[in-house]
Amino acid sequence: MESRTKTAGLIIIGNEILSGRTQDTNTAHIAKRLEEIGVRLLEVRIIPDVSDTIIGTVRHFRDHFDYVFTTGGIGPTHDDKTAEAVAKAFNVELLKNQNAYRTLVEHYGDESQMNDGRVKMTFIPEGAGLIDNPVSAAPGFIIGNVYVMAGVPKIMQGMLNNIIPTLEGGDIIMSRQIIINQPESAVAETLAKIEKNFMGVDVGSYPRYKDGAPEVTIIIRSTDEDMVEQAYQSLLKSLSLNG
Amino acid sequence: MESRTKTAGLIIIGNEILSGRTQDTNTAHIAKRLEEIGVRLLEVRIIPDVSDTIIGTVRHFRDHFDYVFTTGGIGPTHDDKTAEAVAKAFNVELLKNQNAYRTLVEHYGDESQMNDGRVKMTFIPEGAGLIDNPVSAAPGFIIGNVYVMAGVPKIMQGMLNNIIPTLEGGDIIMSRQIIINQPESAVAETLAKIEKNFMGVDVGSYPRYKDGAPEVTIIIRSTDEDMVEQAYQSLLKSLSLNG
Repeated sequence: MESRTKTAGLIIIGNEILSGRTQDTNTAHIAKRLEEIGVRLLEVRIIPDVSDTIIGTVRHFRDHFDYVFTTGGIGPTHDDKTAEAVAKAFNVELLKNQNAYRTLVEHYGDESQMNDGRVKMTFIPEGAGLIDNPVSAAPGFIIGNVYVMAGVPKIMQGMLNNIIPTLEGGDIIMSRQIIINQPESAVAETLAKIEKNFMGVDVGSYPRYKDGAPEVTIIIRSTDEDMVEQAYQSLLKSLSLNG
Repeated sequence: MESRTKTAGLIIIGNEILSGRTQDTNTAHIAKRLEEIGVRLLEVRIIPDVSDTIIGTVRHFRDHFDYVFTTGGIGPTHDDKTAEAVAKAFNVELLKNQNAYRTLVEHYGDESQMNDGRVKMTFIPEGAGLIDNPVSAAPGFIIGNVYVMAGVPKIMQGMLNNIIPTLEGGDIIMSRQIIINQPESAVAETLAKIEKNFMGVDVGSYPRYKDGAPEVTIIIRSTDEDMVEQAYQSLLKSLSLNG
């Protein structure tokens, strides 16, 4: 069986994440939705609303990943610089998009409601396709392999719902997990042996503290379901647990 | 008054964040602690446990920021590759550190408890200083301007408590905020005017949905407290609110 690996990079644009004022939740949401269709999120960069940084990061990512997603910076205010920066990254003009304009006029009731901020949100890079925004109407857009979404989680999730069915996925990763109440250092050697003994299986361990006591979640992953099951049974045996 | 700006970059190392299994909370915590001492977090990269990626990212960041922080990948298991990769990034050896070893022997009770995974955590890049771990003993380390911490939030926070007092901070950013129950697009022009009228003042707006209704938090920021207050009063007037 030929394996197909599809990769993605995510660019989170916004000073509010970098100042710690806003807790990013978009990364985890996007990562999970991509994993469901076999797309691996390989890198996330959180960058400020600075045009040159956005341009450089978009150019780097579009050359390194099958899909690039951005969130944030496409709103109505002066500090929303993503659309203009993405246009520059692709060396195209930022133009008033008539479909986007009509959508916003309809959303706000009539043309008299179209202040400068709202008109700004209808400017889209030349040649880009629109991504429908089911929450607040102002669209995201697709240019090349770059998907530009809003930063507000509810709007981003609505846009992502429209994007996911259009993506070509890859091999789905199967997994099984075990949680044990021991410090990670007590099982490190066992885990290394399992990974070595089962080709193509990835064994991850994720320690945390629960009510002050150490706990480790062990996750066995592979695109080959049989291998996952064999490694899982072998791990149970090594840990002297019953499945 | 001469302004002092200190900058930081953060590297989050771990497949569990990129798969969406674990919600990153370290970014917001570190960002807030740094802001308190006037250090600006300018970029965050979330990368997998892949040596070459860690090496490249550490080298890039140490040249671009005053301080570099990393979290994750210094545990006892085979997939913890940060210490070795950071040593390579600095072209130094990874050596068994006697202070770290004694600390772990003491923590686990006696030397018979020092399995391979625990010994692994005592290997530190040559020339690095140790960062005390008040939770589970295995230390982080400092090499050049790079601070290498654990990924588990409770441990990372304990290490950061030991780091913060040793950093030279910069000018503290003062801020005031207003929350309004309007869509962001209704106030975009007002905000742009305020930023234009008050030199050195940054006006950020952060929309979200609360109980289904749009809400915007407007934050006025500057290292000059008087300017923040003047811009704040001007904004209140423009929005026709009372302070």
